[in-house]
Amino acid sequence: MSDQHQGLVFSCPAPVANSGIIRLGHGSGGKMTTNLIERVFLPLIGNDILNLLDDSALVTVQGTTLAITTDSYVVSPIFFPGGDIGSLAVHGTINDLAMRGAKPLYLSASFILEEGLSIEDLTRVTASVRQACLDAKVQLVAADTKVVNRGAADKLFITTSGIGIIETSLAPAANRAQVGDCILVSGDIGRHGIAVMSCREGLDLETAILSDSFPLNDIVQAILTNTSSVHCFRDITRGGLASVLNELASASKVGIEVEEEAIPVHPEVRGVCELLGLDPLYVACEGRLVAIVAPGDADLTLSIMKKQLGAEGSAMIGRIVSDHPGRVILRSRVGGNRILDKLSGEQLPRIC
Amino acid sequence: MSDQHQGLVFSCPAPVANSGIIRLGHGSGGKMTTNLIERVFLPLIGNDILNLLDDSALVTVQGTTLAITTDSYVVSPIFFPGGDIGSLAVHGTINDLAMRGAKPLYLSASFILEEGLSIEDLTRVTASVRQACLDAKVQLVAADTKVVNRGAADKLFITTSGIGIIETSLAPAANRAQVGDCILVSGDIGRHGIAVMSCREGLDLETAILSDSFPLNDIVQAILTNTSSVHCFRDITRGGLASVLNELASASKVGIEVEEEAIPVHPEVRGVCELLGLDPLYVACEGRLVAIVAPGDADLTLSIMKKQLGAEGSAMIGRIVSDHPGRVILRSRVGGNRILDKLSGEQLPRIC
Repeated sequence: MSDQHQGLVFSCPAPVANSGIIRLGHGSGGKMTTNLIERVFLPLIGNDILNLLDDSALVTVQGTTLAITTDSYVVSPIFFPGGDIGSLAVHGTINDLAMRGAKPLYLSASFILEEGLSIEDLTRVTASVRQACLDAKVQLVAADTKVVNRGAADKLFITTSGIGIIETSLAPAANRAQVGDCILVSGDIGRHGIAVMSCREGLDLETAILSDSFPLNDIVQAILTNTSSVHCFRDITRGGLASVLNELASASKVGIEVEEEAIPVHPEVRGVCELLGLDPLYVACEGRLVAIVAPGDADLTLSIMKKQLGAEGSAMIGRIVSDHPGRVILRSRVGGNRILDKLSGEQLPRIC
Repeated sequence: MSDQHQGLVFSCPAPVANSGIIRLGHGSGGKMTTNLIERVFLPLIGNDILNLLDDSALVTVQGTTLAITTDSYVVSPIFFPGGDIGSLAVHGTINDLAMRGAKPLYLSASFILEEGLSIEDLTRVTASVRQACLDAKVQLVAADTKVVNRGAADKLFITTSGIGIIETSLAPAANRAQVGDCILVSGDIGRHGIAVMSCREGLDLETAILSDSFPLNDIVQAILTNTSSVHCFRDITRGGLASVLNELASASKVGIEVEEEAIPVHPEVRGVCELLGLDPLYVACEGRLVAIVAPGDADLTLSIMKKQLGAEGSAMIGRIVSDHPGRVILRSRVGGNRILDKLSGEQLPRIC
């Protein structure tokens, strides 16, 4: 396997600040993405709602609070162990709605197809969209298809948008973490990134790692129905657990401390990460969430999570602290502490 | 100019049925698009709402009727006379909401960026998104950005989705045209397609034709507020006026007759079309609509339309008839009739 490792070609450029052109790192979910959002997008299209940079936007229409979200999916390859771009596009948007406590209601999907894509592949992806919608009990009500000439896209991109309804008064949001709160994660991290990466780079793993791509709405509804003090939810996607924790620390202006030993990582994910020089804390999931809850409700929330399909491996991994607001500290296995910073550039491009 | 004409390279392939791969014609809005929708998409993801194939989907949430729509924009080049991909993406989605009588409320935008795109171009497009939202009085509340490697996209694609609220009881829909109704168009047709085409193919026109890209929501609201018998609205986009009329004839199961002489076409659009061998009836607009209204309200509707910004050139162009249901007949200048069929393939790829 070390030979194969040497044969890998990484296309992640070193981040070059202010070079005036878009680089892969601008799509990483890390510092370069933040930079692009803060320097280009928010000054022009920012407003009170968009500026929150939450997983979905909350708006009120005729007295009803709705969540709205959108995401484009450009994963390469479009089929990977445990899923494909179709199921991923549905799960991702459902999860962004669920993170605000919304019950997903309706989705739209827009397809950009490259001339030359096989209709068989398109059919397979569309069937996967269908199944993911059925599984998550949402209805796809609007769609669009565009075709671009050969070489102007890479096979197939899907953009899904969704609306959901807020029926809870708990209002989880990225800026509501409080000192003393416990941090829970809904399962082992990094499977999605490693599944896509292994497939793309042709790693011949003894046991295939499957993507964790999964709709989180039932897990969220179970927590909201049975507990009363969830402060934040966030699904772990681009940039992995470390990036999500940084976003929460920053939005809530609190410090975060997590125990390395408590963070569940599948041994094979850990193995591939070691092989490739990746840190699993920065590898994307597509079916895991972080929940931040008041300490008195933490054990109850954890036991509820463990009973849910897709969250059986939930664990408590850390605490919100008053020290070092905006920073995430990892207490390592060997006793030391290290700062978990946002990545500058891109560890694994086109993972979602 | 005939030399330049000979130098044009058209990338539209002849449609090949059942070849098993996606061709540019599948994105034309014509017969191949219909084929793809009916054979691949609807059997898998179809449902009572999606099957209507209307400009936007109507759903009811807590007693409020909402319109939902989505569209991807892949126009090439991204800047063209009279607009760019940013304003186009906002106008297109607003127009799809307006066509169901909805007042547009909130938009989302998802950007797919090609590595190497200049941040200056991205900034210019984003500023254009901002201005188009301000002009149309809608708020952009959700956004996403993905970056793909060089050669995996063509500069910049934008997918916009929108929700609007239905405050009218008139319920215009593609299947509500009735025999005897009058057909109105909100201005001269084909400018958008010719503006993009001229720019892309480097035509040196004496006077630049500007795109008609424009938000139609105020025009629609003026009609809905002041008249009582609009049956259908449809914005004229891919496939042009002829395709839109075919869609309406098919959805309402009625015949359509239009007078060639009554259809407004700018002389320069006509000239470029003659030069390039295009039929202006099949060239896309992005700021024109067809309204189908009861005969007793036709003159009033026309006079209201003519007072609206962007619809000063409105005209009555034809009638709904009981003969030849599903078919559109053009009564030509010279007295003959011809069937205006849907195009098989693609006349102008990547026009929106």
